[in-house]
Amino acid sequence: MSTIENKTAVRAEVLTIGNEVLTGRVVNTNAAYIARRLSLVGVSVRRITVVADSEEEIVAAVRESLQRGPDYLITTGGLGPTYDDISMAAIARALGLPLRESELALSWIKQKTRLEGAPLTPEREKMAYLPYPSKELDNPVGMAPGAWIDAQGEGHKTSVIVLPGVPSEMEAMLEKHLLPILIREQRLFVAEREINVVGIFEASLAPYVKKLVKEDNALYIKTHPGNTEDRPSMLVHVEYASTNREEAERKAEEAVEAVERKAKELGAIITKGRS
Amino acid sequence: MSTIENKTAVRAEVLTIGNEVLTGRVVNTNAAYIARRLSLVGVSVRRITVVADSEEEIVAAVRESLQRGPDYLITTGGLGPTYDDISMAAIARALGLPLRESELALSWIKQKTRLEGAPLTPEREKMAYLPYPSKELDNPVGMAPGAWIDAQGEGHKTSVIVLPGVPSEMEAMLEKHLLPILIREQRLFVAEREINVVGIFEASLAPYVKKLVKEDNALYIKTHPGNTEDRPSMLVHVEYASTNREEAERKAEEAVEAVERKAKELGAIITKGRS
Repeated sequence: MSTIENKTAVRAEVLTIGNEVLTGRVVNTNAAYIARRLSLVGVSVRRITVVADSEEEIVAAVRESLQRGPDYLITTGGLGPTYDDISMAAIARALGLPLRESELALSWIKQKTRLEGAPLTPEREKMAYLPYPSKELDNPVGMAPGAWIDAQGEGHKTSVIVLPGVPSEMEAMLEKHLLPILIREQRLFVAEREINVVGIFEASLAPYVKKLVKEDNALYIKTHPGNTEDRPSMLVHVEYASTNREEAERKAEEAVEAVERKAKELGAIITKGRS
Repeated sequence: MSTIENKTAVRAEVLTIGNEVLTGRVVNTNAAYIARRLSLVGVSVRRITVVADSEEEIVAAVRESLQRGPDYLITTGGLGPTYDDISMAAIARALGLPLRESELALSWIKQKTRLEGAPLTPEREKMAYLPYPSKELDNPVGMAPGAWIDAQGEGHKTSVIVLPGVPSEMEAMLEKHLLPILIREQRLFVAEREINVVGIFEASLAPYVKKLVKEDNALYIKTHPGNTEDRPSMLVHVEYASTNREEAERKAEEAVEAVERKAKELGAIITKGRS
């Protein structure tokens, strides 16, 4: 029915590791960032999971994800120097791999340590231990390296990409190490449109929206109710996915125009963009 | 860490249902709110899961959660009138229960529809269909009722609490239907304080409030911006939860005094109670 239920789409999962999210002291903006960036390049994020900095919980969550068999599993958090940063060890265990010191990762850490004029503590050296084999991922804005592990499930490969939890580091590493590869791999383009419909209730438009999306598998429409100047309103978000960029744009435009026509028939006023 | 975090803690999971979270267009503040409120009353949130508005995905996620056997599974999202609001049906299926029209839920919907002067569309009537048996949960600020289902796992009961995804509705229903029960079950006392801070903006005090609550899981502070006699103001609501009544009162008092001191430093005037 929608872009995110498209069976041929590349599928991803996000695993957020961190007690602070489970106590609600930190909102999971990392997962939202990853989801947004992957969606824009046509990758379908199927699940976001949050677990504690607990070896048992991480191992269980990684194994469950591999059984579902997404193309990518992106983890964030738990790569720092402190005793409770155990993600690399837990992920290695989940994948049945040993943890080994990477010379390349160690050289990055030594270099950053030298630049800081700080000592190479055992806690810092710990960050050079990665699942073996894996590809080391350079951290352009912080100390902890990430890792890329190709895990072979039952006839299906899942690339496990292990990133830090500090948002600026995670974002820089996602942009540098994963997005260029996805953009190359993906031949899908997702066009998006957004309009604000003022003066009618969501429920009035719902039957028409239902009919529209039923007619086309690549079309996705979501309405978000709200109100504008004391009148009922809703934000209508339209997506169209296609391997052909022009088709995606044209179909998204056609769909949004169809929604506009119907909404006006029902007495609404259309204002573009978020109100 | 707080005194009420221990191994015998009541365990909960949160299941967020919504494509908009998986595409990153909405940050999962609902899960953070639930996690924060449950942590305050000593409930340990062990996992947060996000899935799409897809029957298969919801059924799978609910069943996986029941196998882990938390005391509470709180779901949000997918209770509205539109075609993709399928959470009640999917949760009923996951629990092996039929979906039946609830006369009580229907009476609430009819009453709200009458007050709005709107018609009772089939889309609205759909919202009265709940898993059977379940307890209907009144929605004090919106249309869609929730449901409370006691699911019997392998020798373990999980209470499944189904709430809407609109934050104001979810929050009101969590406060009304779940928190009083948790506080009773946990034999907790929650002390509350409220002050009105006049003359500074909410954003000025925010970093300090954030720091305070990060230091103690049992402390909850919520600020509500407003204005008093044309000056910026905010209502600061403080809660402290403890099994010891005196400790709760003392800690709430200490927290409110700390906020007062900081606000005065920043140039504010304190007026007690709601303005």
